[in-house]
Amino acid sequence: MPTLPAQTTAIAIKAPGGPEVLVPEERTVPAPGATEMLVRVRAAGVNRPDVMQRKGQYPPPPGAPDIPGLEIAGEVVALGEKVTRWKVGDTLCALVAGGGYAEYCLTDETTALHIPKGFSFVEAAALPETFMTVWHNVFERGALQSGEWFLVHGGSSGIGTTAIMLAKAFGAKVIATAGSAEKCEACRKLGADVAVDYNKEDFVAAAKQATGGKGVDLILDMIGGDYVDRNFDAAAVEGRIVQIATQKGPKVTIDLRRLMLKRLTHTGSTLRARPVADKAAIARALEAKAWPLLEAGKVRPVIDSTFPLAKASEAHARMETSLHIGKIVLEVA
Amino acid sequence: MPTLPAQTTAIAIKAPGGPEVLVPEERTVPAPGATEMLVRVRAAGVNRPDVMQRKGQYPPPPGAPDIPGLEIAGEVVALGEKVTRWKVGDTLCALVAGGGYAEYCLTDETTALHIPKGFSFVEAAALPETFMTVWHNVFERGALQSGEWFLVHGGSSGIGTTAIMLAKAFGAKVIATAGSAEKCEACRKLGADVAVDYNKEDFVAAAKQATGGKGVDLILDMIGGDYVDRNFDAAAVEGRIVQIATQKGPKVTIDLRRLMLKRLTHTGSTLRARPVADKAAIARALEAKAWPLLEAGKVRPVIDSTFPLAKASEAHARMETSLHIGKIVLEVA
Repeated sequence: MPTLPAQTTAIAIKAPGGPEVLVPEERTVPAPGATEMLVRVRAAGVNRPDVMQRKGQYPPPPGAPDIPGLEIAGEVVALGEKVTRWKVGDTLCALVAGGGYAEYCLTDETTALHIPKGFSFVEAAALPETFMTVWHNVFERGALQSGEWFLVHGGSSGIGTTAIMLAKAFGAKVIATAGSAEKCEACRKLGADVAVDYNKEDFVAAAKQATGGKGVDLILDMIGGDYVDRNFDAAAVEGRIVQIATQKGPKVTIDLRRLMLKRLTHTGSTLRARPVADKAAIARALEAKAWPLLEAGKVRPVIDSTFPLAKASEAHARMETSLHIGKIVLEVA
Repeated sequence: MPTLPAQTTAIAIKAPGGPEVLVPEERTVPAPGATEMLVRVRAAGVNRPDVMQRKGQYPPPPGAPDIPGLEIAGEVVALGEKVTRWKVGDTLCALVAGGGYAEYCLTDETTALHIPKGFSFVEAAALPETFMTVWHNVFERGALQSGEWFLVHGGSSGIGTTAIMLAKAFGAKVIATAGSAEKCEACRKLGADVAVDYNKEDFVAAAKQATGGKGVDLILDMIGGDYVDRNFDAAAVEGRIVQIATQKGPKVTIDLRRLMLKRLTHTGSTLRARPVADKAAIARALEAKAWPLLEAGKVRPVIDSTFPLAKASEAHARMETSLHIGKIVLEVA
């Protein structure tokens, strides 16, 4: 086993605020618990919840590191005594409770996944958060079926690009919303049957037109606000709406008559708050059902840009421009 | 076959308004379509939607009779040419598209059910609407499991009393809300583990107390309004809330954070708007799974009161007092 340093660099949140509050700090290298592993991080995905955490709007759950970062790829350098699935030297990607913006990070062994064959650390680090979120919410919670119409908002985001590709790979018809002609074009290139520029077009009208007036069977929504009532309008009879974030705000007005008359199902989830066992179950399903598509080249994460770890603040600034298409990833030397 | 009269008495809605607008009228006896039957009505259930229809707030769906009444019990007196399941002289109860407040009423053959052994016409007429509503929303849509905690609002209503009994018969633990000590006592006598007088006690606090802080697994709600947010509060992680009416109003504010963090499912349905095939499927499930409980005496509809057909206005007045416990039924001489 290589000798581990006692100190290492991580990106801390100096105080709640703009991207500039993300600053490198020297931290003690954490020691793995019984079912944990210490990973030498080679790449770390940047996610919207990291931005909210930086702003002080999304405190880490009890027991989680204060360092941001929910997904990593790298090499195992130390094992807890009960780890059975991995050994030192293995490469992996993992969903972590926090602390991904660092040279070293802990992960539970069950929420780590093997890196799909042929994938770089950067590509692998782009997988856990978005693929687990999409898998659970679109296929498990939302029960998307082949032949159904699927509407995904934020189609050019990390979640959106993943959702488009996976939904198409499993035989659904896809409508994506995005905020510019360029982003719509990116959605179509990934396979979306219809892309709607929400600045120019009403997605409800577009969804009804695409489905011959019937409406869509499943909606994945991270917008909230007035989108919720419009989602109810865009949905078909027995349609499902799955809520995974609330970028336009969490307090919304709905019309129960529409819910009842169309027999809609409105549900949602957050990944971070769930027990490790839940995350592990999603990870196993992904490895079994989605990883083969990645290894066959049918689905591949869209990487918008990479930044060195020390420039995490620039990565956040990029995400907050909302100009990105796909994932933003930090590279760790 | 007995000679059928050309004219018959039905209760019409003279104009939208109070109970007094319900008046007997002479109407032509309707002729059955291919898959329909003409039934000599012996009893007809009174339901909340009839009251809303009378007020002009719930127009009958296209093709339905303008005469109110959604459920009947009686004898088959004429058959459409494609009817196979029934013959003239059979007794049955049925969910009908409307027109139940009458001496003669049409029903599709598939939405008719045999009368459980030992049941009177009055008891049988109290079954279709409430039992189909409860069966679909609590057991099919809500997927109530043995051992789960179930909260039903309006516990002393026709729906409420049915839901309490069926949920208990299938092994759930039941909390019912009702508006007086007498109604709460009635709920407990039907098997409710906990009854909450909503005028004196907060049902959210009561639900949390009963479940050791965990919250309830399933809620059946016909109230709407501010109850929806409170239902979200009273629900457990992965809890389901099924909406079947909106007595306090359909436009409600919800907090998506609660929906996501608890991974709630909010759904609902209305029975009347559904295709006949859906109603038939629910009827078959009921005959297979609930009718044996009725015939074994384990579940029995609670009859609040009966009124002669001509006094339908008094039946509505009784329902609008909200003093009733269980079903109000019209008897047809």
